[in-house]
Amino acid sequence: MLPLWLTISLTASLTALASAILLSIKILKTEVKDTRILEISAIIKEGATAFLKRQYKAIMIFAITLFVIMQLAAFTLENFDYRIPITFLLGAAFSGLAGFIGMEVAIRTNCRSVDAAKERFERAFSIAIEGGLVTGLFVTGLGLLGVSLLYYFTTNMNVVVGFGFGTALIALFGRVGGGIYTKAADIGADLVGKVEAKIPEDDPRNPAVIADQVGDNVGDVAGMAADIFESYACTLIAALLIGWKIMSEDKFMFPVIIQSIGILASLIALAFMYRVEEENPFKTINSGFLSAGIIIAAFSAFLTWVTFGGDLSPFFSLLMGLLAIILLAALTQYYTSNRFSPVREVARASQTGPAINFLAGMALGLESTALPVIVVCAAILIAFSFGSLYGVALAAIGFLSIAPLIVGLDAYGPIVDNASGMAEMTGIRGKVRRRLEELDSVGNTTKAICKSFAIGAAALAAIALFAAYIEEAEIGTINIANPSVIAGALMGAMLAFIFCSTLLRAVSNGAFKMVEEVRRQFREIKGILEGKVKPDYENCIAISTKAALEGLILPGILSIVIPIIIGFSLKKEALGGFLLGNVAASFPLALFLAHSGTAWDNAKKYIETGHYGGKGTETHAAAVMGDTVGDPFKDTAGPSLNILMDIIGTIALLIAPLLL
Amino acid sequence: MLPLWLTISLTASLTALASAILLSIKILKTEVKDTRILEISAIIKEGATAFLKRQYKAIMIFAITLFVIMQLAAFTLENFDYRIPITFLLGAAFSGLAGFIGMEVAIRTNCRSVDAAKERFERAFSIAIEGGLVTGLFVTGLGLLGVSLLYYFTTNMNVVVGFGFGTALIALFGRVGGGIYTKAADIGADLVGKVEAKIPEDDPRNPAVIADQVGDNVGDVAGMAADIFESYACTLIAALLIGWKIMSEDKFMFPVIIQSIGILASLIALAFMYRVEEENPFKTINSGFLSAGIIIAAFSAFLTWVTFGGDLSPFFSLLMGLLAIILLAALTQYYTSNRFSPVREVARASQTGPAINFLAGMALGLESTALPVIVVCAAILIAFSFGSLYGVALAAIGFLSIAPLIVGLDAYGPIVDNASGMAEMTGIRGKVRRRLEELDSVGNTTKAICKSFAIGAAALAAIALFAAYIEEAEIGTINIANPSVIAGALMGAMLAFIFCSTLLRAVSNGAFKMVEEVRRQFREIKGILEGKVKPDYENCIAISTKAALEGLILPGILSIVIPIIIGFSLKKEALGGFLLGNVAASFPLALFLAHSGTAWDNAKKYIETGHYGGKGTETHAAAVMGDTVGDPFKDTAGPSLNILMDIIGTIALLIAPLLL
Repeated sequence: MLPLWLTISLTASLTALASAILLSIKILKTEVKDTRILEISAIIKEGATAFLKRQYKAIMIFAITLFVIMQLAAFTLENFDYRIPITFLLGAAFSGLAGFIGMEVAIRTNCRSVDAAKERFERAFSIAIEGGLVTGLFVTGLGLLGVSLLYYFTTNMNVVVGFGFGTALIALFGRVGGGIYTKAADIGADLVGKVEAKIPEDDPRNPAVIADQVGDNVGDVAGMAADIFESYACTLIAALLIGWKIMSEDKFMFPVIIQSIGILASLIALAFMYRVEEENPFKTINSGFLSAGIIIAAFSAFLTWVTFGGDLSPFFSLLMGLLAIILLAALTQYYTSNRFSPVREVARASQTGPAINFLAGMALGLESTALPVIVVCAAILIAFSFGSLYGVALAAIGFLSIAPLIVGLDAYGPIVDNASGMAEMTGIRGKVRRRLEELDSVGNTTKAICKSFAIGAAALAAIALFAAYIEEAEIGTINIANPSVIAGALMGAMLAFIFCSTLLRAVSNGAFKMVEEVRRQFREIKGILEGKVKPDYENCIAISTKAALEGLILPGILSIVIPIIIGFSLKKEALGGFLLGNVAASFPLALFLAHSGTAWDNAKKYIETGHYGGKGTETHAAAVMGDTVGDPFKDTAGPSLNILMDIIGTIALLIAPLLL
Repeated sequence: MLPLWLTISLTASLTALASAILLSIKILKTEVKDTRILEISAIIKEGATAFLKRQYKAIMIFAITLFVIMQLAAFTLENFDYRIPITFLLGAAFSGLAGFIGMEVAIRTNCRSVDAAKERFERAFSIAIEGGLVTGLFVTGLGLLGVSLLYYFTTNMNVVVGFGFGTALIALFGRVGGGIYTKAADIGADLVGKVEAKIPEDDPRNPAVIADQVGDNVGDVAGMAADIFESYACTLIAALLIGWKIMSEDKFMFPVIIQSIGILASLIALAFMYRVEEENPFKTINSGFLSAGIIIAAFSAFLTWVTFGGDLSPFFSLLMGLLAIILLAALTQYYTSNRFSPVREVARASQTGPAINFLAGMALGLESTALPVIVVCAAILIAFSFGSLYGVALAAIGFLSIAPLIVGLDAYGPIVDNASGMAEMTGIRGKVRRRLEELDSVGNTTKAICKSFAIGAAALAAIALFAAYIEEAEIGTINIANPSVIAGALMGAMLAFIFCSTLLRAVSNGAFKMVEEVRRQFREIKGILEGKVKPDYENCIAISTKAALEGLILPGILSIVIPIIIGFSLKKEALGGFLLGNVAASFPLALFLAHSGTAWDNAKKYIETGHYGGKGTETHAAAVMGDTVGDPFKDTAGPSLNILMDIIGTIALLIAPLLL
């Protein structure tokens, strides 16, 4: 008979996968009536799938190379289990599958939500939410299933670490590659289209417009899915690894049970979200979150009591994680929504031109790192007081328990963004258009919340991985005055900076080529700007694809090779300092980049609603510049740091037995 | 009879002060013939002195408050020596004096070098070098004198830490206040003058032009002097503190003797610099550096041999510091000079507008952090292998031994910058003008070198202070997996980010007001742009002064209060993590800001020499935007991080006995 924890975990993860498949079938059965929408959708589908195929091919080559290297290591080194390369491949496969299916469903949902918007607001909202949740359920269902089954079959958590490394690799490619793809296209489209040719966003005359729409899906759906998959799997693995050494099986599998509740709670929350008011869709989203949160908290308390025989300490550790998300989401709102003063100040600064706008946005982003860091520090300190290092890992588990819903709402964003873009491209106006724009603006907020969620999750996962590494490498205490620890910390922090550099450079090179291509098309292909001749969309897609695949080589190598070099040359204590220095720098850097970028975006939108003269003024032009700079901040470099924090942690865990 | 070390130290420091006074007298005795230059000089003098007086008044209030608080602490707490508040006041007074005299001499030298340039290039060069060296000699002479005498009279290194804290306070005000002052003025002047009204830089019709010139002196002379004074004193104190516990007096005073040699070597080097070729002034500067470096290295080797009885290990530790400067200077050149590809790529990116220019500069700066961090890590690792933590402190001493010359060459920068500005304002053209521009361009390079020197010195001082703190707080080993250490590290890194935020905000607010004032004057005072009516310079000076004094309150409080809170609430281990996290993040952040800023500046200059269409093109306008954003990066936020790294280290050292 299966152990209880596995029964629960299989029930939850298979329910998640079954529901995701049912939702997908339900969406796909809806017919798309508008043929022009269908036509655009086909091009986006083609571009996105083509990119993903090429990307997965590159990943496969890379993954197989790593597999072979690890197999060789397993043959020659005593402390390196031969099953790790296999779990590694499974991790990559599971994460890749979740991202692929999620994106394929999302790009089939967007056109259907345009149709739905013609009927009723509620229909469009719920189909988009359902489409998004497919990704959320696949990510968490496959993550939970993979970790549970692998432990069941190997009964060795050290081997399961390979699974985490596999998900981290996909996340690296998905987030970094996707991030470069989407922003090279977006910036290229904006700089020539909006700024030079003065045509609206998403205008079909812009040759880069399809690449831009494809980018939304590869970056925000597939990339984000891989990002959260990795944080989800790594947190689970780190928590299990710490518990495994100090508890019996029925107790240490507690995190798996919590994540099972998280999945079921998210499905229940979906039921609450079918009724929505056009005036206030946030009410619906908030009630979804609230119900999921309450269900998770209530069941966790009960299960803690059952599992740990009346000791509620683990529950309080979990609760710190849940509370931390609420606070992080609120802080993100404050710093990035144009309903509050920080973004409005950036808008005001735009009056003096792009330079002061840049500085104001930078200042906002740098400042916005303070409170989230304090929240996370408070959460880990309190969680530690309830259950030492295991408590810290549980806080991360609590944080991620709501992941299915958050990923779902994040994937909702690009669906409605694409839908709104398609409406623009096919000339849909009036009520339907307004409905889609309303949905899109909700999507911007959910995307921003998800972004902080992803950063917070990555930081907590990195801390959990760090804690697991310290245990695994049997470090105990580190002599912090040991200069190799100091050097490790300095280099860990420095890696965050140069990693960002490679990404910004990849985006700016890609955008540079995109700008030249769009300018060339406007110049050489007569009739594009008059709308008589279709631009060459494929060429722009090819430029973004090339930029993404070339651009991820350097950051990929840096993030994998440097921790290995540090570990073997400066020894295990230095690698500990390296991990700590990296998370200490990457976490605020990621927050800064995400918040600055979003603030510039929303400051621009604030001006577009008529403040400081509105569109067409110098002030607006300055704000557009800030938005352009912010694009790779918030969608490429910032989120990629999430991956960096965790990939070096999984590598450290993998090589820990070799450093003893 | 005085001990040998004190005899040497007094000889060197008093020689430094005497030479500085003789040089000043020599400069001041030269008559200024051009009455228009004299007139402008008088306004600059008045503005700079007025600012410094107001700033010193603010410092005095702040310092006396801290003095009283520390006295109360000394009365009530057993472990807090009553003499610390007194050494604190002396540190503040000495550093303030060095900055004040240095600046007063510099603003009297600038007009004299215009006159000298009318005669011969060599005259102008040597008077400017002499004027700069006055600052270098005062900074190092007073620093060495203060530390030596205080130890002689107290024989307690813990008490001398107060002196370091005093210098850190002045550095905070000087660097932060000066940095805000100079950039609010500079950006304001550029945005309206160069960009909107299209009048040249340093044009007398620009109302903010005098504030800009004043800013060069308060920021680059007084601010830089205070910055290096603090690194110099704190490194010396940290090295002595570590040595004090483990060696006899004749041995542990070794760092004082090395700094004595540094001063004498710099004076000898000055003699080598009187002959200069107009075609290649760098040859002269390099020969100066080279001779000083060789003298220091040779004497250090000899004295190590004498002091440590044939053991040359301390010499090799020192040598690591000397080698590190050479490498850092070379790396700075590579990343920030327009003779190399990185800056040229930023110039190329400007063709696509401000956004891509901005991204390219960011990417350059982020990338440029890698090698300097590796150099410093290698230096401390090797130095440690020769002499454990004391070796690390000695590497910092070696690094700073060449400070007199570096500070001198840095102060040379604003002297010739001002001279060139005065020539523009009084319409001097032709050969004399070209000579001054040549001198100015040399000054830009020496300023850039000094900037990396200051960052490296601050980082090494911070590491030395960290090492001293670990010893002082009797931490031994830190459990790095202790979550309060993790939280400390995260918050230390975060502090670097929010500290930068407060500075960028202060500059952008100040610049915003300056822009409005300059626009107002152009609008309301008829005849300014035609050159018929003089603008109201004083009003602009007042705006910069106000911005600086208001702007330094928040960063000042943050940097002083947060380490104290961390130390007392999360305990001594957390404070150790905090120091480490801070230096790990501040060091690359400071490098990034300094290098990005300088690269934008030089990319603009590269375009101005005729590349990509030269002045007046869209490409140039984009580069000007990058330069504007880069101004507070390189001259406000970046250098202020130097102070942050060290001030929290001295505070940690001060409160260490209370945390036991």
